[in-house]
Amino acid sequence: MRILFFGDVVGRAGRDAVIAHMPTLRDRLDPDLTVVNGENAAGGYGVTVKIADEFFAAGIDVVTLGNHTWDQKDLVGTIDQQPRIVRPVNYPEGTPGRGFVLLQARGGRKVLVVNALLRLFMEPMDDPFAAVDRVLKAHRLGAGGVDAILIDIHGEATSEKMIMGHFCDGRASLVVGTHSHVPTADHTILPKGTAYQTDAGMCGDYDSAIGMKKEVAMAKMVRKLPTERLSPAEGEGTVCGCYVETDDRTGLALRIEPVRIGGRLSQSVPERRQ
Amino acid sequence: MRILFFGDVVGRAGRDAVIAHMPTLRDRLDPDLTVVNGENAAGGYGVTVKIADEFFAAGIDVVTLGNHTWDQKDLVGTIDQQPRIVRPVNYPEGTPGRGFVLLQARGGRKVLVVNALLRLFMEPMDDPFAAVDRVLKAHRLGAGGVDAILIDIHGEATSEKMIMGHFCDGRASLVVGTHSHVPTADHTILPKGTAYQTDAGMCGDYDSAIGMKKEVAMAKMVRKLPTERLSPAEGEGTVCGCYVETDDRTGLALRIEPVRIGGRLSQSVPERRQ
Amino acid sequence: MRILFFGDVVGRAGRDAVIAHMPTLRDRLDPDLTVVNGENAAGGYGVTVKIADEFFAAGIDVVTLGNHTWDQKDLVGTIDQQPRIVRPVNYPEGTPGRGFVLLQARGGRKVLVVNALLRLFMEPMDDPFAAVDRVLKAHRLGAGGVDAILIDIHGEATSEKMIMGHFCDGRASLVVGTHSHVPTADHTILPKGTAYQTDAGMCGDYDSAIGMKKEVAMAKMVRKLPTERLSPAEGEGTVCGCYVETDDRTGLALRIEPVRIGGRLSQSVPERRQ
Amino acid sequence: MRILFFGDVVGRAGRDAVIAHMPTLRDRLDPDLTVVNGENAAGGYGVTVKIADEFFAAGIDVVTLGNHTWDQKDLVGTIDQQPRIVRPVNYPEGTPGRGFVLLQARGGRKVLVVNALLRLFMEPMDDPFAAVDRVLKAHRLGAGGVDAILIDIHGEATSEKMIMGHFCDGRASLVVGTHSHVPTADHTILPKGTAYQTDAGMCGDYDSAIGMKKEVAMAKMVRKLPTERLSPAEGEGTVCGCYVETDDRTGLALRIEPVRIGGRLSQSVPERRQ
Ligand SMILES: [Fe+2]
Ligand SMILES: [Fe+2]
Ligand SMILES: [Fe+2]
Ligand SMILES: [Fe+2]
Ligand SMILES: [Fe+2]
Ligand SMILES: [Fe+2]
Ligand SMILES: [Fe+2]
Ligand SMILES: [Fe+2]
Repeated sequence: MRILFFGDVVGRAGRDAVIAHMPTLRDRLDPDLTVVNGENAAGGYGVTVKIADEFFAAGIDVVTLGNHTWDQKDLVGTIDQQPRIVRPVNYPEGTPGRGFVLLQARGGRKVLVVNALLRLFMEPMDDPFAAVDRVLKAHRLGAGGVDAILIDIHGEATSEKMIMGHFCDGRASLVVGTHSHVPTADHTILPKGTAYQTDAGMCGDYDSAIGMKKEVAMAKMVRKLPTERLSPAEGEGTVCGCYVETDDRTGLALRIEPVRIGGRLSQSVPERRQ
Repeated sequence: MRILFFGDVVGRAGRDAVIAHMPTLRDRLDPDLTVVNGENAAGGYGVTVKIADEFFAAGIDVVTLGNHTWDQKDLVGTIDQQPRIVRPVNYPEGTPGRGFVLLQARGGRKVLVVNALLRLFMEPMDDPFAAVDRVLKAHRLGAGGVDAILIDIHGEATSEKMIMGHFCDGRASLVVGTHSHVPTADHTILPKGTAYQTDAGMCGDYDSAIGMKKEVAMAKMVRKLPTERLSPAEGEGTVCGCYVETDDRTGLALRIEPVRIGGRLSQSVPERRQ
Repeated sequence: MRILFFGDVVGRAGRDAVIAHMPTLRDRLDPDLTVVNGENAAGGYGVTVKIADEFFAAGIDVVTLGNHTWDQKDLVGTIDQQPRIVRPVNYPEGTPGRGFVLLQARGGRKVLVVNALLRLFMEPMDDPFAAVDRVLKAHRLGAGGVDAILIDIHGEATSEKMIMGHFCDGRASLVVGTHSHVPTADHTILPKGTAYQTDAGMCGDYDSAIGMKKEVAMAKMVRKLPTERLSPAEGEGTVCGCYVETDDRTGLALRIEPVRIGGRLSQSVPERRQ
Repeated sequence: MRILFFGDVVGRAGRDAVIAHMPTLRDRLDPDLTVVNGENAAGGYGVTVKIADEFFAAGIDVVTLGNHTWDQKDLVGTIDQQPRIVRPVNYPEGTPGRGFVLLQARGGRKVLVVNALLRLFMEPMDDPFAAVDRVLKAHRLGAGGVDAILIDIHGEATSEKMIMGHFCDGRASLVVGTHSHVPTADHTILPKGTAYQTDAGMCGDYDSAIGMKKEVAMAKMVRKLPTERLSPAEGEGTVCGCYVETDDRTGLALRIEPVRIGGRLSQSVPERRQ
């Protein structure tokens, strides 16, 4: 299978970049599953159903979230009707929405997408290791089970992300980090066959502070005086993420390549081999 | 000028990788300044003078540090005799050692190396923006001033690192992050001419938890029971960092390329153009 | 019923104070249940079975713990044989020991003691609200159920502690905080009948930094250079905690009085009214 | 001299309590200096000049602040005209307002009031120890110098507060904590003569979560879903703080007594002895 993943979409610059580059990427890579983390898509703060629908119309299959899940308060009441919007799996019991989704892909194949919030330097949350473990025990990767498993681990600390990668190694097709808004260059296949990248990077304008206007963010941090509200930077966005090809017999990864298209970063456009 | 920088060296795997690849890199790139962050070189915890001397013997000019500066307690008493070991500039007044060093490079050129500790999700420390600003105001980059300025910003949060990059933009040759132990793929030249990379990545074994043995780190984080002390992973290390070429008239950057050699990561070996 | 609770015992000064004052307090108050938080009893770091046995010999019924539970590594292997040592209830599944204990008190009455770790400014941990809720739903306070319920909430933030107090209000006899090592003066009966105190205070020498030697703690914090290991201050300890009387029909609290005896703090010695 | 200090005033309940009890307290104690921490006086978020003026009209001499200093943005532009509003001394250089004030008290005596932000579990800030040290070195307590020195240390961690107490011991009349919104029962005179209390407690409604509506705070913390904005609880407030008498020759403390009047907490009304 071919899997395409994009990291946190930040504001209009990020949305425009994703939607502009999707046609070419679909032509080029013909992905069986495309997932985007949308937690900052609505002006930097959460996602709306309208924006999610634009992603779906562009060919994206699933929108994942993170610590900004409820920034758009309307989502609390509507997420239960949104089978393809996935919020963190380790929210408290009784939280609206779902923490993972099992989809039908082409050719009757099944793909599982999970979203989890990590905890180091973040808000208190239930154990993401236990939560992911429960999902993985209920959905075995490979023949007779699920054909591909993608886990979006939304977290700050590189240590926790690498540990989660090893924790899932051999049980998922791809474990990919989000939230830092900077792509890492450590895409790799872990020893037991899971593709891994510490962070996919954001989709947004990199002449910024993690996608937000740099002047405002700098004033806030350096002077510690009130500023206008942080809003997304408006220069050309870069689409950031990764592309993975899996072995159809095992569901494990054969390759992982970084995706960086448009905007200010060095470009990386993967080619399809399968 | 040509500048070579390596991120946090973790244990023997990291030291061996740096020392093994230095001869080739010197041949290939002929750097005017080579700097390595050594804060985890001694078994993961700080650096010793002996290890620093091995780096110097291999052609490294300056060793920078970070939050692990004093893990090897002997350094407190000896760092004042070590002009080429630089500890964070924003430690309390009266701290032994120096926070920056002005070196004589080839051809009578002057290079400044600064080390600063950032603060988000880290130990309380004096304002790194004010501290770096003081150093930059006392050492102007470009004709009649300093020929190259390298600032190693040791921090956790990508937002703070990007803000520091913009804060120094136009006033330094290179602002490069350390501490996350994962290389980022956002190497770029900022709008006013400063080369920037959110994190250089560690020099060490990437089949690990940020360079330390993955089984121990996982047990500690997942089970929350006592474990043996974390120690460095022992597989083949990757040398991680970046290579920068500057404009001799302005001291600003013309190019920045990632360096990733050996070990498990995708390889990136820059070429010299100047 | 009459309940006596002491906060974190810190080192020898704290142990000596508890053991010296227990005989008088037993005479004076004749408690049905006496509980002490022992997480710093062994030189400031955890508790040993030997020390717990000294507490039991002095008439203490239960020893609770906190974030220092496993500082004495031997306890991991022995805690399962210790029915009266209670570790935090919201540790990961599979953790040795128990998070609460149901005891037989005088006259066939049943008392429940729970220990929970809060999360604000502390290590990531599973939801203490959900964990405590499960215990309280399985053990109803009052006629036909449990005669008294004591919950030791071990946490940093006063907000989280007050919220936990209200969360348990009407369902527990006493919710009392530990971990800050400073007694609060807000002992009160909440609107639905639960006695509450944000922090019981430590049992130890208050001419210190939360029970540890002040010179060492100050050097560490102010100079940020290596120091000797923090160890408990050795002046006369104050026994700190609270005394609660409950209504035998409901299990709810009728009174709560602070306990501060010996050492440097203002003295508060409750009287028995029931 | 006689000094009266009140902790963080939270919303209308806190303001009403302070203003209602001031006449009696002035009659009873005839203070030479009265200081209140006003950082939550305006609906829980900062202070306005209008509210500060109400405090001054009630006989309060100085209003101190904390991490909520700029919640009312207007204060940024007006604080320079407010000699008796004191913001934290360790804000970045160039911050409007002042971090301490030297006042003329009755009989030509001089009193110094300092406000400092601590750092553990709080926003990054410059070293409060260095900042307070500079102020204390410029203003010596005792004969020929300043007659009384009050330092409001605004912080979360009890350890840092106790260390700051010892750091100032013998150099200040009173070191008193704020920010936790819960009064501590550890008021004491430190070995070298400085009165100390880890936290003065808030002035506000204690049937709450640190002064804010308990239902909203609980929903936010337990369910992690969006709620209405946190606003102050509206029940009867308790005035919380401490009363100190100093030795006129040395400026050091002779007594410290807690103040808790009105509302739900146990009452403590000091008497004047001098
Ligand atoms: Fe994000
Ligand atoms: Fe996020
Ligand atoms: Fe490091
Ligand atoms: Fe570090
Ligand atoms: Fe403790
Ligand atoms: Fe503790
Ligand atoms: Fe406050
Ligand atoms: Fe505060």
